[in-house]
Amino acid sequence: MRVIRHVAELQQLADRERSLGRSIGLVPTMGALHAGHLSLVEQARRRTDRVWLSIFVNPSQFDDPKDMDAYPSTFEADLRACRAAGVDVVFAPGADEMYDPDSQTWVDVDEITLPLCGAARPGHFRGVITIVTKLLLAAKPHVAVFGEKDFQQLAVIRRMVRDLGFDVEIVAGPIVREADGLALSSRNVNLDAEARRQALVLCQALDAAERAVAAGETRSKALLQLVRQEIGKAPRAEIEYAELRDPESLEVAPPELARATLLALAVFIRPPGAAAGTTVRLIDNRVLHPQP
Amino acid sequence: MRVIRHVAELQQLADRERSLGRSIGLVPTMGALHAGHLSLVEQARRRTDRVWLSIFVNPSQFDDPKDMDAYPSTFEADLRACRAAGVDVVFAPGADEMYDPDSQTWVDVDEITLPLCGAARPGHFRGVITIVTKLLLAAKPHVAVFGEKDFQQLAVIRRMVRDLGFDVEIVAGPIVREADGLALSSRNVNLDAEARRQALVLCQALDAAERAVAAGETRSKALLQLVRQEIGKAPRAEIEYAELRDPESLEVAPPELARATLLALAVFIRPPGAAAGTTVRLIDNRVLHPQP
Repeated sequence: MRVIRHVAELQQLADRERSLGRSIGLVPTMGALHAGHLSLVEQARRRTDRVWLSIFVNPSQFDDPKDMDAYPSTFEADLRACRAAGVDVVFAPGADEMYDPDSQTWVDVDEITLPLCGAARPGHFRGVITIVTKLLLAAKPHVAVFGEKDFQQLAVIRRMVRDLGFDVEIVAGPIVREADGLALSSRNVNLDAEARRQALVLCQALDAAERAVAAGETRSKALLQLVRQEIGKAPRAEIEYAELRDPESLEVAPPELARATLLALAVFIRPPGAAAGTTVRLIDNRVLHPQP
Repeated sequence: MRVIRHVAELQQLADRERSLGRSIGLVPTMGALHAGHLSLVEQARRRTDRVWLSIFVNPSQFDDPKDMDAYPSTFEADLRACRAAGVDVVFAPGADEMYDPDSQTWVDVDEITLPLCGAARPGHFRGVITIVTKLLLAAKPHVAVFGEKDFQQLAVIRRMVRDLGFDVEIVAGPIVREADGLALSSRNVNLDAEARRQALVLCQALDAAERAVAAGETRSKALLQLVRQEIGKAPRAEIEYAELRDPESLEVAPPELARATLLALAVFIRPPGAAAGTTVRLIDNRVLHPQP
């Protein structure tokens, strides 16, 4: 397994692999790898001859510097996990390699970045899309794999790739969960035992909505009430958003659901009372399929 | 010579040429080809095995729809000129091919797009940079050639390519002039005989400034006065801007010029009095080299 630090070296290797007829699958990550990331490596391996994984904690997508400081970093363990998973190349550039100090170019996606995570985190998607553009230009992959947990991110990246005409296939990896249902996230390490327990309300709310839809419920309002009620059972949980949206355009779902609809959640798990401790922001989602 | 209409077909051909070890030089144009464009083809040929030229009148870079309507179109003559010049591929996509109706992705460059043409034409460079990004992703060239007449455009494209890490070399082609000094431009066909004569004040002003610098003048203010005076000799000429700027960053030049400095002009040539006719906007520029 090679560890590459520089864009130019990665581009040369991409040209070489391509000229030898080998396909490249890229898994962009911010490190702190868990089984969710490794499932994306598997997705890439099924489709391409070479699997490349990038590790770059992208400063421009954090609206809050404290959030970036709190983001876990486990570089040596990440390298071991990549080696064990058969990753061929880890691309781990320094911040200066990805952002020239004079850099003034940004890739923006309009409507689809406005709701959900985009509403609460100004500039977040501009940062995400710009770094994904740079990573695609650096690795020249045939396939790039992103997790469905960041559902809006995936939709925004698909939109950007289609709009700009990037010659890359975007592949989605399903959410990987703990046995009790908690969606894997690098941020989960910041949950204490009680917060970890209360964090289960996210997937419990998704399960409840899915059961209601299976039982014939199609009213948006009733489903969102149910979701808020489920999340309300955790005293330390505070909803940032809980919304029903079109899975592709991310437009607000109609009052009566008639087709596949995204239920997207962002929830803060706060320390108890005025206690010191870390507030952890978690997201989760599911696509609901109303009965015809 | 092949004429290709679709991005996917061009990308496949790019992959094939690259896998055969051949280099690709792209000359992006809006058609209405003249000797200036053909000099860019020559620049590409000197550097690459295959020369590709794109013809696409990009709607998103026109701030005024009337300006786009007035833009000359000479497609059949363009194809003949390309054939004669030994162009290998003409990429001539339809508008829908480059802009999905739902398209919502834009590439923005900040500071460097604000002055000069960017000040007068809001959204112009967003349109230019977005279409250049798409053309680079479509043609996957090793080299792309742009003319120095659109000096700011060239600087903005260089900035974007550096910032995003595009694996392409940007080459500049010097301005090509008529025997009497008029810079070649697709818009020149819209000049009547008298306007054509008066349009010479642009290069005459550049010449005057260059002579003054050669004679030891280094004061910005004196040079700009000289330029305005020269342009003022043409009663139908109206200055949009006449500025001294750093050739790379496009920051305003200091009061005393100490190093290479861009002198950039944009001038309207208007119909006489209240006569009907076309106002033509012309640009021209020169890099001045003050004596040490």
